[in-house]
Amino acid sequence: MTEDFMRSLLNNYKEGHLSLTEALKELKKLPYEDLGFAKIDHHRAMRNGFPEVIFCQGKTVDQVAKIFKTLAEHNKNILGTRANKEMSEKIIKEFPQAKYHEMAGIISMIHKEKYISDKKLLILTAGTADMPVAEEAAITAEVMGHRVERVYDAGVAGIHRLFNSYDKIESASVIIVVAGMEGALASVVGGLVDVPVIAVPTSVGYGAHFNGLAPLLSMLNSCATGIGVVNIDNGYGAAALADTIIRVSLKKE
Amino acid sequence: MTEDFMRSLLNNYKEGHLSLTEALKELKKLPYEDLGFAKIDHHRAMRNGFPEVIFCQGKTVDQVAKIFKTLAEHNKNILGTRANKEMSEKIIKEFPQAKYHEMAGIISMIHKEKYISDKKLLILTAGTADMPVAEEAAITAEVMGHRVERVYDAGVAGIHRLFNSYDKIESASVIIVVAGMEGALASVVGGLVDVPVIAVPTSVGYGAHFNGLAPLLSMLNSCATGIGVVNIDNGYGAAALADTIIRVSLKKE
Amino acid sequence: MTEDFMRSLLNNYKEGHLSLTEALKELKKLPYEDLGFAKIDHHRAMRNGFPEVIFCQGKTVDQVAKIFKTLAEHNKNILGTRANKEMSEKIIKEFPQAKYHEMAGIISMIHKEKYISDKKLLILTAGTADMPVAEEAAITAEVMGHRVERVYDAGVAGIHRLFNSYDKIESASVIIVVAGMEGALASVVGGLVDVPVIAVPTSVGYGAHFNGLAPLLSMLNSCATGIGVVNIDNGYGAAALADTIIRVSLKKE
Amino acid sequence: MTEDFMRSLLNNYKEGHLSLTEALKELKKLPYEDLGFAKIDHHRAMRNGFPEVIFCQGKTVDQVAKIFKTLAEHNKNILGTRANKEMSEKIIKEFPQAKYHEMAGIISMIHKEKYISDKKLLILTAGTADMPVAEEAAITAEVMGHRVERVYDAGVAGIHRLFNSYDKIESASVIIVVAGMEGALASVVGGLVDVPVIAVPTSVGYGAHFNGLAPLLSMLNSCATGIGVVNIDNGYGAAALADTIIRVSLKKE
Amino acid sequence: MTEDFMRSLLNNYKEGHLSLTEALKELKKLPYEDLGFAKIDHHRAMRNGFPEVIFCQGKTVDQVAKIFKTLAEHNKNILGTRANKEMSEKIIKEFPQAKYHEMAGIISMIHKEKYISDKKLLILTAGTADMPVAEEAAITAEVMGHRVERVYDAGVAGIHRLFNSYDKIESASVIIVVAGMEGALASVVGGLVDVPVIAVPTSVGYGAHFNGLAPLLSMLNSCATGIGVVNIDNGYGAAALADTIIRVSLKKE
Amino acid sequence: MTEDFMRSLLNNYKEGHLSLTEALKELKKLPYEDLGFAKIDHHRAMRNGFPEVIFCQGKTVDQVAKIFKTLAEHNKNILGTRANKEMSEKIIKEFPQAKYHEMAGIISMIHKEKYISDKKLLILTAGTADMPVAEEAAITAEVMGHRVERVYDAGVAGIHRLFNSYDKIESASVIIVVAGMEGALASVVGGLVDVPVIAVPTSVGYGAHFNGLAPLLSMLNSCATGIGVVNIDNGYGAAALADTIIRVSLKKE
Amino acid sequence: MTEDFMRSLLNNYKEGHLSLTEALKELKKLPYEDLGFAKIDHHRAMRNGFPEVIFCQGKTVDQVAKIFKTLAEHNKNILGTRANKEMSEKIIKEFPQAKYHEMAGIISMIHKEKYISDKKLLILTAGTADMPVAEEAAITAEVMGHRVERVYDAGVAGIHRLFNSYDKIESASVIIVVAGMEGALASVVGGLVDVPVIAVPTSVGYGAHFNGLAPLLSMLNSCATGIGVVNIDNGYGAAALADTIIRVSLKKE
Amino acid sequence: MTEDFMRSLLNNYKEGHLSLTEALKELKKLPYEDLGFAKIDHHRAMRNGFPEVIFCQGKTVDQVAKIFKTLAEHNKNILGTRANKEMSEKIIKEFPQAKYHEMAGIISMIHKEKYISDKKLLILTAGTADMPVAEEAAITAEVMGHRVERVYDAGVAGIHRLFNSYDKIESASVIIVVAGMEGALASVVGGLVDVPVIAVPTSVGYGAHFNGLAPLLSMLNSCATGIGVVNIDNGYGAAALADTIIRVSLKKE
Repeated sequence: MTEDFMRSLLNNYKEGHLSLTEALKELKKLPYEDLGFAKIDHHRAMRNGFPEVIFCQGKTVDQVAKIFKTLAEHNKNILGTRANKEMSEKIIKEFPQAKYHEMAGIISMIHKEKYISDKKLLILTAGTADMPVAEEAAITAEVMGHRVERVYDAGVAGIHRLFNSYDKIESASVIIVVAGMEGALASVVGGLVDVPVIAVPTSVGYGAHFNGLAPLLSMLNSCATGIGVVNIDNGYGAAALADTIIRVSLKKE
Repeated sequence: MTEDFMRSLLNNYKEGHLSLTEALKELKKLPYEDLGFAKIDHHRAMRNGFPEVIFCQGKTVDQVAKIFKTLAEHNKNILGTRANKEMSEKIIKEFPQAKYHEMAGIISMIHKEKYISDKKLLILTAGTADMPVAEEAAITAEVMGHRVERVYDAGVAGIHRLFNSYDKIESASVIIVVAGMEGALASVVGGLVDVPVIAVPTSVGYGAHFNGLAPLLSMLNSCATGIGVVNIDNGYGAAALADTIIRVSLKKE
Repeated sequence: MTEDFMRSLLNNYKEGHLSLTEALKELKKLPYEDLGFAKIDHHRAMRNGFPEVIFCQGKTVDQVAKIFKTLAEHNKNILGTRANKEMSEKIIKEFPQAKYHEMAGIISMIHKEKYISDKKLLILTAGTADMPVAEEAAITAEVMGHRVERVYDAGVAGIHRLFNSYDKIESASVIIVVAGMEGALASVVGGLVDVPVIAVPTSVGYGAHFNGLAPLLSMLNSCATGIGVVNIDNGYGAAALADTIIRVSLKKE
Repeated sequence: MTEDFMRSLLNNYKEGHLSLTEALKELKKLPYEDLGFAKIDHHRAMRNGFPEVIFCQGKTVDQVAKIFKTLAEHNKNILGTRANKEMSEKIIKEFPQAKYHEMAGIISMIHKEKYISDKKLLILTAGTADMPVAEEAAITAEVMGHRVERVYDAGVAGIHRLFNSYDKIESASVIIVVAGMEGALASVVGGLVDVPVIAVPTSVGYGAHFNGLAPLLSMLNSCATGIGVVNIDNGYGAAALADTIIRVSLKKE
Repeated sequence: MTEDFMRSLLNNYKEGHLSLTEALKELKKLPYEDLGFAKIDHHRAMRNGFPEVIFCQGKTVDQVAKIFKTLAEHNKNILGTRANKEMSEKIIKEFPQAKYHEMAGIISMIHKEKYISDKKLLILTAGTADMPVAEEAAITAEVMGHRVERVYDAGVAGIHRLFNSYDKIESASVIIVVAGMEGALASVVGGLVDVPVIAVPTSVGYGAHFNGLAPLLSMLNSCATGIGVVNIDNGYGAAALADTIIRVSLKKE
Repeated sequence: MTEDFMRSLLNNYKEGHLSLTEALKELKKLPYEDLGFAKIDHHRAMRNGFPEVIFCQGKTVDQVAKIFKTLAEHNKNILGTRANKEMSEKIIKEFPQAKYHEMAGIISMIHKEKYISDKKLLILTAGTADMPVAEEAAITAEVMGHRVERVYDAGVAGIHRLFNSYDKIESASVIIVVAGMEGALASVVGGLVDVPVIAVPTSVGYGAHFNGLAPLLSMLNSCATGIGVVNIDNGYGAAALADTIIRVSLKKE
Repeated sequence: MTEDFMRSLLNNYKEGHLSLTEALKELKKLPYEDLGFAKIDHHRAMRNGFPEVIFCQGKTVDQVAKIFKTLAEHNKNILGTRANKEMSEKIIKEFPQAKYHEMAGIISMIHKEKYISDKKLLILTAGTADMPVAEEAAITAEVMGHRVERVYDAGVAGIHRLFNSYDKIESASVIIVVAGMEGALASVVGGLVDVPVIAVPTSVGYGAHFNGLAPLLSMLNSCATGIGVVNIDNGYGAAALADTIIRVSLKKE
Repeated sequence: MTEDFMRSLLNNYKEGHLSLTEALKELKKLPYEDLGFAKIDHHRAMRNGFPEVIFCQGKTVDQVAKIFKTLAEHNKNILGTRANKEMSEKIIKEFPQAKYHEMAGIISMIHKEKYISDKKLLILTAGTADMPVAEEAAITAEVMGHRVERVYDAGVAGIHRLFNSYDKIESASVIIVVAGMEGALASVVGGLVDVPVIAVPTSVGYGAHFNGLAPLLSMLNSCATGIGVVNIDNGYGAAALADTIIRVSLKKE
């Protein structure tokens, strides 16, 4: 529409319906988004398989269902994070092609699923209790079109378990490390590899853990390099960061 | 040497100088690093232009000079971060080809300088006071072989300054955002782009800033996605993370 | 009554019923409030439409209803904040003219509703989850007689949405920015306008958000000027501050 | 220049030097600031007496002098905050009309000084140690064209001192309360008046004061309403907020 | 018993049943409490009306009832703090002379009730929400034999309410100030009087209140002198401290 | 003067020079302090030996000397806390009767020195490093007219040292416990005695001591009762609180 | 198996089925654990009575039961910590020889129970509310084969109770001190003995206790030596540390 | 002396100089330390080589020298921690047999040096910057008579360096892990061994390290067991704890 508006503005001026002053005034009023920045959104929408995301936590079942429906009408890929079972049931009833990933707490509905790259994303957890956060990352990344490998329960207290997965570690292009407790796994992995490590502290712990503060500080102060940290329990954010990293190689200079 | 050792071990066994039991015992004793993990280090050392890094802060001028000299004897690329002028003078006296980047606080000595990739790394700062941290990142990245663009003093309080650099923002493959105060720049940039954003909170501020805690929390809680956070004032770490990200596209699957 | 007391005291002295010493002694005993400071309260009570406020949270339904009734007997405007549905039902049953604003969590009963000023108060939120706090501010301000405009879900991660509301931003006399997550919206808005910005951090977030600490620090450290911060989730307080600001122009020097 | 650019663009199109497609493409490239948002800055620059502000802390004497000189060449009002004596001496040597306010730590150079409003701004401090922050606010406000009254050392431990200034409190349109220790003065003043109170916690205190955290939390949790809080020791910010508040009444609807 | 032991030991030695060495050895083994320090406990037990205290919170109804019964068998005064209704019902069923103070959350059973001193203890609260903590203090003090006066809801936001109670303030020997929010009341009262002020921060508040941290810091940093602070919500502790203070004047030098 | 004013006002009304309305209006204007609250100050000033206190820290030598001189002209008892040697030298030069207590950092000048009570104040420290804070308390208390006993270096790590002073502990009316590290001494002493214990956490410690936070929290959470806490390192405040406590017994009901 | 693999590899090389290059390549691939570090696990598994530990908290009843069953099939000693009654009932139904320790929240199933050492482990608590944590430690230690003595409710507020247990304190080889509130017991015990003291802060407390932060800091800053601290409420960890300490004396040099 | 006192008391009673009542009264007054607890100190003093410790930090050179001299007169082993060079020079001048360990910051003077046990104490550091804390521990332990092995700069970022020291790790009876940054080394080591690990967080780091808070929390939350934590930078405390652990095996049951 903006383009139409500009087109007619240019022509109105050309044809003398607008004075120069009037044309200039109109131009200055142009709503911001119509001039270029809005394309960012379109751009994002047009990326392969990039889903619309609903953060379900704190919303009612009805609110989630309503938003889901609206997006579904536009034929979009949809990712509902932090969703509970009740939400998923209501949605799947109406959209049987939707899927609920229980451990991840994710409802997804994807129209086209194919890998956007050959690069592998490895997701490691320190303990089994870190798995829900890891699954939030894994499902998100898969929905975004990435090849995901999982190695769970490979914490440093039994470091040989980690080394047993050395092949997967070595072949990954990006690694997400999900760890609660003291979060030392991020440093150990960061010291082993040369690829970007995305560290996700989790709220798994108690006492002086302060709901994730301990691994968060640990990861920020890692003696290893190549580590970027996201918020506590933010599996979705880790996957979204991994997505941008893998896309760097798809970008044409 | 390990290989030599293994080679001779195998041959000693083949030739009967060692019994099977003795050969097995020897094999179990093999120092860890010699069996594969150490290659990581070699691997790292063999990457194009990847420097040896000296964290100079807290060391004496003599200690820094001595480490620098040792590394220089091995003909390595060297990066001394958090270095002061006095250190640089002592080193440059002996190694005139070394260079001191004053604002970055970096002493570098690089043997071969060429870009390892066409991807551009953009470094943005919110204010002028964030520049030393940004320069630490910039020089580090340049030494590591990356194309660096700088846009400094583009904080959100005067958001048009940021938008004036939209071309650079749009063409970057990775963006490092360096911001003190409330660190809002990371969120604004994260909302504009689809490439990885590395957020570096700085200790620039006072009062309820708590030496960088304010922008650190801000960046971890960003409403934008695709943001990885590193430690407060950690320009070096941001560049090292950017380096791994850009190398992802150089990696062969 | 104090006036009566003083009047009779003065006359008793004039007429000789009190000695000078006795009159002085009586005067020194005068209760404080009767001498001038109490007028502050009267003053407040006499402001146009300024309501009596009940902070309902932590009170029982019966307690709230009883206080409401007492105030209603004095024919006062009443604002019950942090009220739940059950409270509202009990009250509306007895006072059908009372109104419950569900999202705001406010019960109001207003006798005269007219704008006390032409100045516009704009209330912005970063996300939809910040709306309850925003509505607490909006309803409070409306009850206090102000013209309120709302722009919700205009966070900086999609900054064009904010710019689409530039007209409203530009025409406002006071702006309340309600934001959780990292609270960057306050800085961006503060950088765009010359009017007072009241920043309300919300507890919307998780992990390193620490129940609102992240946006609180963010807002206190804003690189933009003209920002006053209130407590986390304190929509009422933001509106009350906006009220005093708008009244400044009504004040006669 | 943008206007020139647009003017010639329009004419080039009108005259057929540009196709419609080309003209549209050019329009989309227009630098952001030239289209409207930049006027905010001009607007700010054109406000009566509104100074350019240099935050001197952390800059060298030479840097401050250089920035000052550049601004002075544009004939602007200049306010250098957090400036030390040495900076002021260097500047005053070159610009004898500049003035150093020692307690405030401000260097100012003002071309036209007149009050922009009749409204009075009262600045209160709890103790004498809070005076430097108060003076930063006071001088800033005066340079911005406001009528400032000062009442210092009126803390609540001797509350009669505060009440002795009741006339000034009552006649103020905006009040800035500057307090360290426990910051109770903000609540007491907020309870006495109906005008906006800007609370500035200071780092004056020791022990469990945590460099201003105690009065900061105190002010954010005040039981009085109508209080907006700024960062610890942020006298400049308080004055800038007061400036926007007083300007609300100058604004035409 | 210890006395009996010592008595017989002395006699055994006197009568030659023990050698000097044996007697010395026995003496060195004497359990600590029997030698004097235990008298502290007896001393405490023997103070007029000083009750045995049960901290009920976190105990089951049965546990509380059982401890209560055991103490009751020894004919002691009993004070059960942080008790809920259910606990009180079970106890009062068996001990009808016990009493439940609902707002204070205290079950008491007192054998002799008389004032141990003429000194008055005044308990002030800032708001009505602080009353449960104040009542915990008040009932505790009354059970301990003190004359208690209560002035509730006298916060500094309406400081005239406080001044209306000036007579009570002036005649008190010890004052307990119970305040949540920003806790400014302690400073204001501390500035008005010369008697000991015991400040009790409460967890009443929200947001940056951090469950009582705000008033706690406020009270510790008070600009007034003569203030001793106890833990957040610790009404019992405040009363116990007041008790020791009043007893100082009963103590014979 | 106020009295004169009131006297003449009453007479002017009696004699008809003022109408009733005028007289009432005048009365309402009476400055607050003149009507009764100011007597608090006089009251304080008139207490035996109660000194004027100068908090010297953060003031220049000249400022301290000037304040001291002003107070000295009014023939007052003076206590300068947190004073350094240089300050003391300047003052003692002019007022040779002044005295510097080096460890306490106090300059005192006292006109009449006699005990105001027979009650003993015991000051205990955990370590020798806590002595400066203890001496600040001790000298302050002595200047205020109290009998002070000192037991230093009696920390719980060698608890027999504490028990060796049991006589002094038992005969004290008020005890000030000054402790850094973990501050356990306050609990142990609080468990031994029935008199008020004033706990002063000190900043003596390192690491997870956080400049006094550790003993502060320790003392606030003490399992012993009868403990009032003051700010970290606040020896003066502890003595001032002890002073009010001892004065309780001097107060007539 | 690794040994078999190596054996056949060596032979294959010897017999010419593998070239030297091939043999070397195979050797480098050897999984880490097979080369020596894995023996740590076997070692641990082979320690007398050392149980497999399930951290039940946050797991479902079914998950716990399933893990328990799997371990039981391998005939292992099992310790389920932080288990609730429901979990225990399900397990005991299937494994009647399992035992539930309610206060400790531990399900245990032990095949051989005998003391591995004569050394005594003493477990002390400050209050009765600390008992669940103490029991977690006690049962864990007993299952690990240690002689445990318990002294509960011996807090420093009544220090004679502690001294009454001096015999037990003196005869212990390792002492675990479990304390909430201010945690002073650790310091007092640490000052009395020469054996290792393991300090366990508990979350027992309220207000400025901050869920165990107060005793945690207290214990870390203890003025006594020989104290090692574990996480808040970590009874299991304390016992596991005590186990390693007692085993030191069993270790052969 | 106490013994003399008791002896004469017993005899006085025996001989009739004291009545039974008088004798009992005297006995109750016996100073605590003389009856048994004081033996703890003697016990400590009599342990092989256990030194008297002076914490030099915060003391003047003269104070340190004076304390040292006093102790030296009693022919004791002396350990001065946190001592600077100046202190050491003054002391060594007078006591040439004293020794200064510069990196450890320790002055020692030991009369008899022999190992009290065959058990080995291994001290590991993550980085070279952690060495001063490690040396404080190492020298302290050596002075206390222990066999110390050092492995420095073995942080997890290059984990093969740690594994290269596996022999030393495996043969140690107690391990002290000294680590700043994120402190992950403690977890990795704790996962490798079955012996007690004493974790010492250091203040080596910056930004979100908060002077050692990051590794402190990390170590407290370690996923490995058998770890006891001491205060930040507390090398002395770690050695003292290791000393008590090794002595457990010397203790006779």
